Parts: sequence; structure tokens; C-alpha cells
Amino acid sequence: MKKNVNIAIVGLGQIGNYLLNELNNKKKDIELKTGKKIKIVAISAKNKNKKRKYKINKKIFYKNPLEIIKKCNVDILFEAIGLSDKISKKVVELALKNHIHVITPNKALISKHGNYLSKLAEKNKVNLEFEASVAGGIPILRSIKDSLATNKIFKVYGILNGTCNYILSEMEKSGENFSNVLKKAQKLGYAEPGNPKLDLNGFDAFAKVRILSSLSFNKKISNKDCLMEGIENIEYKDINIANQLNYRIKLLGITELINNQLFERVHPSLVKKDTYIGNVNGVMNAVIVHGNPVGESIFQGEGAGPGPTSSSLMSDLLSILRGNIKYPFGIPEKKRKIAKVYNINNYFNSLYLRFEVKDKPGVLAQITKQLATKKISVERLIQIPDNKKKTASIVIITHKSNEHDAQSCIKSFKFNKNILKKPTLIRLFN
Amino acid sequence: MKKNVNIAIVGLGQIGNYLLNELNNKKKDIELKTGKKIKIVAISAKNKNKKRKYKINKKIFYKNPLEIIKKCNVDILFEAIGLSDKISKKVVELALKNHIHVITPNKALISKHGNYLSKLAEKNKVNLEFEASVAGGIPILRSIKDSLATNKIFKVYGILNGTCNYILSEMEKSGENFSNVLKKAQKLGYAEPGNPKLDLNGFDAFAKVRILSSLSFNKKISNKDCLMEGIENIEYKDINIANQLNYRIKLLGITELINNQLFERVHPSLVKKDTYIGNVNGVMNAVIVHGNPVGESIFQGEGAGPGPTSSSLMSDLLSILRGNIKYPFGIPEKKRKIAKVYNINNYFNSLYLRFEVKDKPGVLAQITKQLATKKISVERLIQIPDNKKKTASIVIITHKSNEHDAQSCIKSFKFNKNILKKPTLIRLFN
Repeated sequence: MKKNVNIAIVGLGQIGNYLLNELNNKKKDIELKTGKKIKIVAISAKNKNKKRKYKINKKIFYKNPLEIIKKCNVDILFEAIGLSDKISKKVVELALKNHIHVITPNKALISKHGNYLSKLAEKNKVNLEFEASVAGGIPILRSIKDSLATNKIFKVYGILNGTCNYILSEMEKSGENFSNVLKKAQKLGYAEPGNPKLDLNGFDAFAKVRILSSLSFNKKISNKDCLMEGIENIEYKDINIANQLNYRIKLLGITELINNQLFERVHPSLVKKDTYIGNVNGVMNAVIVHGNPVGESIFQGEGAGPGPTSSSLMSDLLSILRGNIKYPFGIPEKKRKIAKVYNINNYFNSLYLRFEVKDKPGVLAQITKQLATKKISVERLIQIPDNKKKTASIVIITHKSNEHDAQSCIKSFKFNKNILKKPTLIRLFN
Repeated sequence: MKKNVNIAIVGLGQIGNYLLNELNNKKKDIELKTGKKIKIVAISAKNKNKKRKYKINKKIFYKNPLEIIKKCNVDILFEAIGLSDKISKKVVELALKNHIHVITPNKALISKHGNYLSKLAEKNKVNLEFEASVAGGIPILRSIKDSLATNKIFKVYGILNGTCNYILSEMEKSGENFSNVLKKAQKLGYAEPGNPKLDLNGFDAFAKVRILSSLSFNKKISNKDCLMEGIENIEYKDINIANQLNYRIKLLGITELINNQLFERVHPSLVKKDTYIGNVNGVMNAVIVHGNPVGESIFQGEGAGPGPTSSSLMSDLLSILRGNIKYPFGIPEKKRKIAKVYNINNYFNSLYLRFEVKDKPGVLAQITKQLATKKISVERLIQIPDNKKKTASIVIITHKSNEHDAQSCIKSFKFNKNILKKPTLIRLFN
């Protein structure tokens, strides 16, 4: 790469604006570490005159980001708009086709179009870097691609969504219910004020899981149906009971190869309180990699926010400036096979089940009989009466049982009038 | 770098022998990820016929490693002997001078001669890589050099010696004393059977601290006197009392810049039980980096053993094979300044002090009066009598006080006949 490098930033929201400031502040440091002089030649956003934390140079502002690629002599482009398609995809596509390196924190884009875009990058001999797309400031992608490159990785899991982790931690701490804590999270800027759905329903974490799988197992990014559950239905009651049983509830993203079949999932999980993952609280993210011969590697840090995200974006920049032209997913695109997908119905796991029932004789027997029919055996059982309402909560921790059986068992309770609502199912993690 | 790459391994102990096997097993994977074909062309060790876990090819065995450099056409050399000087230094020196890339897990060599050797590497335009020298399988050096490259790092600390951490954890768990647990550690292979001194006295952790400082703060490796204390004098009694006070004792390596002065230290520390670092137990290593804008980044993994060490050695190899020719310490050698060293006497910190005293009236008053004279104020005090021996342990947690005052205070107790031995001092970590 030549000595003078031209840079464009598309998207000047919280992330793009912070990055712009970092780039301006750290030109000297970048030159010291890479020998390259960077120059920001173009910026773009929806609104030129929006009030921003750091001032922008309006002389290099473009309303249409596609124009930048045609008109400016850009070497490296940051995409910080954040859409999975539309203008985000168009800009990245056009940049790669024009031999421009692309850096993006956009997990929605990469998890959906990463296969296509990485092919495009390889074809045009430029980099497509996306360290910031998973777990913010934690250098997890580079660690998998570079530092653990020759390990056989068989499982990766973690807390990949700070919003959910904050809400669950705060519910435990304050004893408040989901919707109150969500409001608090929105006030503090930990959850989207408008539509926090993509965080809460597991979609955001799932996008990250897909990227992690692809890098860890050297496979194509999967587009197959998988197990995705969010935290919207977790009640304080569950957190409280889990606590008494020495568990915490965490939204985990998990990916592993079982008999060379890819098993990707995001769901609330009961984790033991005395484990590492059981103690990652608040907005923190954490990723745990199991590989051979390295053993267990843990990475923890701030998973979101302009600072940590910029840290990762800048590391991508330095990688390119140092001349590390690499396959975006570690190996050539054509060598990455499509993974066979594990059949969730075969999954064998312990479960936490909570039944809300009428407090009258025989109900417990009905439940345990039905469980027995489905070969689900009980390890622990707690019944908590609510004398005022004449109801009770029956909580059961099962021995390992089959997912298919468990789901069909839960469905079967639908017709039992003593069971007041659909039972809550939370998987144990081990 | 050319397509076919010749490799030599010098030193075939546990690490070198395991690495040899990894290299043989992962040739295809390496070619897939880097496009390079590797060939092991030379190996060397003290004893050709020693029984090893993995067979060696005796046809490429050299008794004298220096001969390899002269006779074989080596591109990359692994140094796995592990001495701080002598043949380790000679081999690395000669290799670099002959434009051979060097990879080593040798912290003793790098912490002592890293400045000189990195200069040599830069001059000869080859890499000197040493990821495995700090914290085994944890990719901490590459993370600091690459992933956190544009962060302003101001503090790095962690558990850098698995032997000590195992011993302290095991003492807590079993209630046994230091020497018994040390024997157990030696049996399990966690401590050197012959001379474990360099682990126990903090020397090993200190070498790692020096390397971490240099990379984190972009300074020359310091050779100045610093604070280094080991765990040899920690008694079960201290662990037990700390426990009651909600602390654990950990051997921490800490480096930070205070007013741009380098403060490197290794010493047993009282850490709160509910902190992350207070829960890293057994042989695990952990490193915590505080940087701006990334915030707090945590890295945890296996800090020793052939598997984790090889994982890091292989990552160094891939970095070279991918053509990342880089400054060994992240920036050009001549830009790395010598750091001013912080004066430990100015250090202001809370202390744990344990006095073994005759159990008779007035002794406590003598101690507290002397502390007051030195402006050391007491935050908590526990007195535990030993009625049989007619002695008592007096444990004091002080408010923050000056290191110089604390040391001179402790010395002053030497002349007090009621105090039966030199008081134990352990620093609190915060």
C-alpha cells in the first residue's frame, strides 16, 4: 500500500462521528505504527447539519455515499450506517468492486451477506474487515483468525448482547419486572429508545453467533433456521427462583459442532452462579472459546458504545495499513463449505420448567405423570403457593431430556385447565 | 515470502517436542490459511536419544544449533531452550543476523535482551515474535500490538504465574501450608520439580510484566529495580484471615504509568472476593488491560503447558507466513524511549499487616502508637489469641498510607521484644 492513504466514512451517527474524531486525533500514532499517512477525504450521512458531538468538515461532506466512490480517490471506506441491506449493502458492494478496502461494525450486513461480500473482497484483492461487528471492543474475531488460527475450535459461547445482560442483571439486583427495567435501560442509553426488539428477541446476538461460527469452524455463514429465543418472557419470578437454586439467567449465544453438524442457538440459559459466565454482569460482553490445544480462552470487555467499537474499527484499519491482505473469513471463500445443520429435536439437555397452576389437589400429579409419559424425569421440584390467588408456581429442574419430547410435552399441557398459562421453559447451560 | 518455507526447532523439551508434532500435523491447515508450504529441515537438542512423547526425525538432528544456521537454508527458527543468555541468546542472535525470522516463548531472554534483539531484527528486516512468552495460550501480546493498537493504555495487571496461583488457590481450598501444597504442585507438574524458585519469588511474573509494559506503553524494556515479592512467605493463616475479611490473596503482576513514570511490580495482593480477578483460580492466567477508548479488556486462559504455548507459537508462525513483517514491539525501536521509573517510596496504598505478638497487656497499644507516629491509620483490626502458646496474631488493614512510612514502621518493630517476628505485609489491590 502506498504511503498516503485516503479514507472515507459513511454514516456519522454515534459510532461514525466518534471514529472520525479518533482518526483525526491519532494520525501521528497511526503513522508511527504503520508508516502510513491517512487523510479523511470524504464523509457522508443522512443529515449534514445534525448536531453532533464532534464537528465535521462540511467541505468533504457528500449526501450520496455512492458518489464518494465514483468521485473521490478512496483507499479505505468505513461503513457505519448499520443496515442489513439497502444503502449499507450498496456502498460496501460498490466499494469492494472498486478495489476499496472496507471496514464495518455492521453485524446485520455481515451475517446476512458476508459470504457474498467476502467473495467480492477476495476477487478484488481488498480487505473486508468487521472486528467491531461482534462484541464491540473485544478483539474476538482477530483472536480466532490470527491468534488461535491453528486450533481446532469446537465450541464458542458467550454473552453477546449487553442490553439483555444489563436488563437481566438489573432485574436480579432491583427485583423489578422486565418492563420497568427496560425503561431504565432505555433511559441510560443501554437499549434503543424506539424499537429495542432486535436486542431483546435474540436477533442481534444471533447475527454475532453466525459470524463466530463461520470464523471458528471455517464454514460458510449459515442461513438455516436455528433456535432463537429472547428475554422478553423472563419474569422476575424466574430470576428469583433460579437464584435460590444457585443459578443465574443469562442470554447466551452458543455455537458448536456436534458430529460435524452446526448447532447455533441463542436463548436464555440457567448458568451456575459460581461459574465465570455466571458473574459477567451489566452491559459487559464475554466470549469463551474452546479449542485444541489452547484449552479454554476467555475474552471479556465492553460490547458496545462508540469507544469500544472505535477501538476495533481502528484495529481493522491498522491491519490494512500494515499490509495484511487476508481472507475476510480466514481461509479462501471457496474452501469454506456449507455446514450441515444439527437437528435441534435431538438435543438432550436439562430444563427449568415453571408451571402456573390452580392450587388444588391432583394438579402436581397431572404434571408429573405427563412428564413421565414423555420420559422427562424430575431432578428437583419446588412448589410455591400464592395463597391470595389460590394458585401456585411449580418449578421443575429436569434431568437431561430430549428437546422434541420436551416441546411436545409442553404443548400437551395446553388442554389442562388447571395450568393457567403456557409453561415457562429455560434451558440449563453446561 | 516464498512459497516453500524451511523451519528449524532448537530445543526439544516438552514445548519444542509438542510444537514439532503440531507442525507436522497441521501442514495442510497452515497451507490453507497462508498459502505456504512448510518443511521442518532441522532440529536440535542436548540429547538426541532422550525418550520423547513424539518421535523426532534423527536425520535432521543437529547437536550444535549454531550449525543449523550455517548449514541449512532456514527461513524461520523456533528457539525453545529457554535460557536468558548463553546458547539461547547466541542462537537467536545468529539467526536474526542471518535474516532468519525467530519465534520464541522465552520470556527470560526477551525481558533481558528484548531491546537489543528487536533492534537486530529490525535491522535485518525479519520478525522476532514472542507471543508465547507472556501468559501462554492467551493472545495478549498480539491483542495489545494489533487489536488495541490505537488505544492509550494506562494500566495492565493480572495473574501471570500459574504455579503461584495454583498454590494460593490450593492452600485456600485444602487449608494446608505452603510447603505441602508446593510438593503437591510439583507432583502434578505445575511447579518445577528441581528449583521452583523463579516461579515462587515473582521473577517469572516480573519478566512478563516487563514485556507487557514495553508493548503497552511503547517504551524500552526497563532494567531498573522494581518491587518484586513472591509468595514464599504467605502462610495459610493469612489466606484464612483474608478470607474472613472477604479477600483472597493473589500474586499479581502490575504495570502502570503514574504521571508518565513507569511503576512495575509483582507482589502478593489482597483482592476482593467478588471481583473478577479474585475468582481466577488454579493454574489459570488472566490479564486485564485498561485503555482508552476500549475500557477494560479481560483475557483469560491457560498460562502454561505445551498445548497453550504451542497455540501461541503457531500464531506467531502464521503471522510471519502471512507476510506481516512488523516491529517486534509495535513501533520502531528508536522511537521507544526509556521510561522514567516511579519512586516506590511515594506509593500510597492500603496494607494488610499481621503481627505475631506475646499475648500480654500493652502490646496492642505499642503497635498502634507506632503506626500513628508514622501516620498510618487503622481501618480494621482483628486480634486472634493462641491461648496455648500465649501469643496472638494482630491483623490490621490500614487506610492508604505511604510505602516509605510503612516500610520504616515495620523496621522499627524489630527492636520490640513483644513482637515475635517480622510483621507480614501484604498490599491491598484496588
